[in-house]
Amino acid sequence: MKRLAVAAAAILCAQIASADDLRNDALAVFKPIPSTVPEVRGNPVTPEKITLGRKLFFDPRLSGSQALSCNSCHDVGAGGSDAGPTSVGHGWQRGPRRAPTVFNSVFNIAQFWDGRAADLAAQAKGPLQNPIEMNATADVLLAVLKSMPEYVADFQRAFPKVADPVTFDNVAKALEAFEATLITPASPFDQFLAGDDNALTVTQKSGLRLFMDKGCSACHNGVNIGGDGYFPFGVIEKPGADVLPRDDHGRFMVTKTASDDYVFRVAPLRNVALRAPYFHSGQVWSLEQAVAVMGVAQLGTELTPQEVKDVTAFLGSLTGEQPRIEYPLLPPRTKETPIPH
Amino acid sequence: MKRLAVAAAAILCAQIASADDLRNDALAVFKPIPSTVPEVRGNPVTPEKITLGRKLFFDPRLSGSQALSCNSCHDVGAGGSDAGPTSVGHGWQRGPRRAPTVFNSVFNIAQFWDGRAADLAAQAKGPLQNPIEMNATADVLLAVLKSMPEYVADFQRAFPKVADPVTFDNVAKALEAFEATLITPASPFDQFLAGDDNALTVTQKSGLRLFMDKGCSACHNGVNIGGDGYFPFGVIEKPGADVLPRDDHGRFMVTKTASDDYVFRVAPLRNVALRAPYFHSGQVWSLEQAVAVMGVAQLGTELTPQEVKDVTAFLGSLTGEQPRIEYPLLPPRTKETPIPH
Repeated sequence: MKRLAVAAAAILCAQIASADDLRNDALAVFKPIPSTVPEVRGNPVTPEKITLGRKLFFDPRLSGSQALSCNSCHDVGAGGSDAGPTSVGHGWQRGPRRAPTVFNSVFNIAQFWDGRAADLAAQAKGPLQNPIEMNATADVLLAVLKSMPEYVADFQRAFPKVADPVTFDNVAKALEAFEATLITPASPFDQFLAGDDNALTVTQKSGLRLFMDKGCSACHNGVNIGGDGYFPFGVIEKPGADVLPRDDHGRFMVTKTASDDYVFRVAPLRNVALRAPYFHSGQVWSLEQAVAVMGVAQLGTELTPQEVKDVTAFLGSLTGEQPRIEYPLLPPRTKETPIPH
Repeated sequence: MKRLAVAAAAILCAQIASADDLRNDALAVFKPIPSTVPEVRGNPVTPEKITLGRKLFFDPRLSGSQALSCNSCHDVGAGGSDAGPTSVGHGWQRGPRRAPTVFNSVFNIAQFWDGRAADLAAQAKGPLQNPIEMNATADVLLAVLKSMPEYVADFQRAFPKVADPVTFDNVAKALEAFEATLITPASPFDQFLAGDDNALTVTQKSGLRLFMDKGCSACHNGVNIGGDGYFPFGVIEKPGADVLPRDDHGRFMVTKTASDDYVFRVAPLRNVALRAPYFHSGQVWSLEQAVAVMGVAQLGTELTPQEVKDVTAFLGSLTGEQPRIEYPLLPPRTKETPIPH
């Protein structure tokens, strides 16, 4: 009995040591999602801005057709993205790239797949004005907002020391403030990082170990398990043209630098299990397949079926508490509100 | 002093009597919105059905493109309709008629502008399958739902005594149950009906009196101030083809009866101030203009500007407490989920 007890204790200690090793290794490359709304540089996040930003985010009248809202493509009930493969925009046009999730996007180094917007405020102006997305013009959009006294009062509350607060910049800032609240803390992975050994299954722990040892975490690290650097899609081997369309040169179009050809911002992997289909092309519909593609393309490694399964299980542990959002009541239009076009 | 006090008391009594007369006259033709969810014939409204129905209502994957949800056109933040004039559907096609509000629709005699669906469950099947609306097929829709274990469990909870609860009928019933909760009680008008003389302004009271005396309430009556009968658009004088397009024959297309030519279900006027543009064509963008059009078309009366203003003010008193809805978290797709088409 005594020997058995000693042996059991030894196994337990080994498990604890092993879990501690895994956690320490993980803490060296990953960070938990904070439980409170992060600060946004140059744009203090106030309750008034959040209230306004939430209305703007859900209001289709910000689009030229008045039929598409931010939430149409960044669905807060669907991991902050849409059903894909890429988004339906104005006139049923489809863009070339999948809608990135809005969740935790405040933690990214920059916005869009190619990082061409420095922050969420700069990002917001893109789809609003893009003719194949929301197809608004700043002038008409501001005329829409200024036509509704409730919106004008909301802007006055959100930007209290400004003579004329209804500006395109402030639309973007209010959206940024609301989006900064869309964080998903307390995932099983975050609970594990915080010390709870039971937050991850054995398979998920195995997947986490593989994720670090195989080299995934060389790019996918930090608070968003990605989102903080740029790498070529196909470091080792370019995926087929179905997954990596050859006419989308990624960050090269932003920097015009040869070494940025087919370079994209590292995909943030928070809540990734909620967000199929995968990659900027949205052409891979299962997470297992996406993991296998990454192994070959980025690491030059054909992962075994068990390795794919374990890594996929770990990625499932990155699903955090989803934002609970009350649908906003939108101000009613007035006689002065421009009609849809 | 005594004479003054007596005179003041007399005026007060006259006002009370007048308010009581107005209320009694109103109670003879209108009914308040109940404060609790009404019963639905053949479809008991349970919390489990509401939970499921709310997810279905917001889930774009019920459409063929997986980009349009019920809420796309029946926006719960915008009075239960969209920005108009008519709705954008599959492939950016636009239907011929404006999306009717989903709010308080449970109180209507039948659904759609022509009343072709007996209830909300029958109604729900229409837009889902209409090729210019959500463009789903029942088969694919059910395959989508059955591919997600969370949805299957939701259906089992909502329809507990059924072997295979994921059916198109039950999709419609769950939607109907959720929609039955979308009622807007406690409008100023309802508060007035309940005895609060101060709930309406003087102008609104004058408008209510006009609304009854001029004959509006001959059609717009009951709990929804409309929605419970059928009348020709243009009882006295047909509006222009911009407002009443001549190729949409209304209820005639349902009944094939000559007397139903250009007949429509009487528009319910609850929350009407939130729901511009007006009429089935969605071509009238101001409520004042809609009131004026109705005067001429239905009553043969050119209302004075003051009368239009008063009636419009009364209609503003029909805006009730809007539903406060938490955006549902939608079940994540699986490898088995059909991809968008």
